[in-house]
Amino acid sequence: MSEALREPQQDRSRATRQKLLEASLESLAEVGYSATTVAVVAARAGVSRGAAQHHFPTRADLFAAAVEYMTEVRLDEIRQQATGLPSGEGRTEAIVGMLADVYTGPLFRAALHLWVAASTEDALRQQIVRLEAHVGRQAHRALLEVLEVEERTPGVRETVQGVLDMARGLGLADLLTDDAARRRGIVRQWSLILDQVLAAARR
Amino acid sequence: MSEALREPQQDRSRATRQKLLEASLESLAEVGYSATTVAVVAARAGVSRGAAQHHFPTRADLFAAAVEYMTEVRLDEIRQQATGLPSGEGRTEAIVGMLADVYTGPLFRAALHLWVAASTEDALRQQIVRLEAHVGRQAHRALLEVLEVEERTPGVRETVQGVLDMARGLGLADLLTDDAARRRGIVRQWSLILDQVLAAARR
Repeated sequence: MSEALREPQQDRSRATRQKLLEASLESLAEVGYSATTVAVVAARAGVSRGAAQHHFPTRADLFAAAVEYMTEVRLDEIRQQATGLPSGEGRTEAIVGMLADVYTGPLFRAALHLWVAASTEDALRQQIVRLEAHVGRQAHRALLEVLEVEERTPGVRETVQGVLDMARGLGLADLLTDDAARRRGIVRQWSLILDQVLAAARR
Repeated sequence: MSEALREPQQDRSRATRQKLLEASLESLAEVGYSATTVAVVAARAGVSRGAAQHHFPTRADLFAAAVEYMTEVRLDEIRQQATGLPSGEGRTEAIVGMLADVYTGPLFRAALHLWVAASTEDALRQQIVRLEAHVGRQAHRALLEVLEVEERTPGVRETVQGVLDMARGLGLADLLTDDAARRRGIVRQWSLILDQVLAAARR
């Protein structure tokens, strides 16, 4: 086969894989872990079952790839959200609001289904723990940077970590009901608190 | 049958039901929602499958009762933890630490499995949302009381709600790895912050 002919086929294969991975995260967020099978994901992606099984012979293969993919997408989301924040007054509220948005979105919902499944499935757990530590560190670093504080200042590290945990909790609270109104009040108040607490570290 | 003979049988029946409900929460926390069936719960409780099915003919019956029971146990836990807190210095840290303990215990783990399952199962969701609102209100009220603050003071409501969300997030962070060391630092720092923020409301 000539290079010219092979190239488009590789492109198609990559595109199919990408569609399957996107569909697997959507499926996780919408129907949960047990119901997300290779067949269900193939149907959602508009890919034949045979083609799906070529990429992911087993459900374990699909999830191994989906967890990697989810990590990439979450890191992209963190980086993307960190740009375009206002400066001056309202910046902290924009930051905490952005965090709350990240943790209440479909990606967090997909992650939640995976974490809970991983809590009773060892192979999945090991993979997720490793990647989750990486996402956690990146989120923490990004938050320090946009808040314009140094971790060396005593208390800053734990303050910022607590805000990330609060955002995770807001995500959980939004799982079964629309929690947006309550969330807005908390985001506003915790932004005020954060500005007070971090003022010393910013000086 | 005379009253004297019926009474012990009713007691036995109540005790069996109680054993099944306790076993269902343990099973949820340890093996998750999909693996928690009437047969699994019966075996764990040391109850015959026939006796278990007499109490809970279907899995839906078991979960309907287990969700009610979990609500009771969680409210008991909140009430119990609220007594025996130290006064004076260290009180706020004891309160936030107690909250973190509640949200990282086996009961929260069982609840987490149920919430995630309920996010894709309508009947379960409706029941849980109703009971969860009640638990949330009681937890919020208990926290205001032990922190000795009034909700009328502006900002207090949202500050305290955020602390509950942070505790929920700490519970989630503890699901796949032992997060105790990180959690201690966050509890300490946010107790300091809480004392500063709530000082005005306590005066």
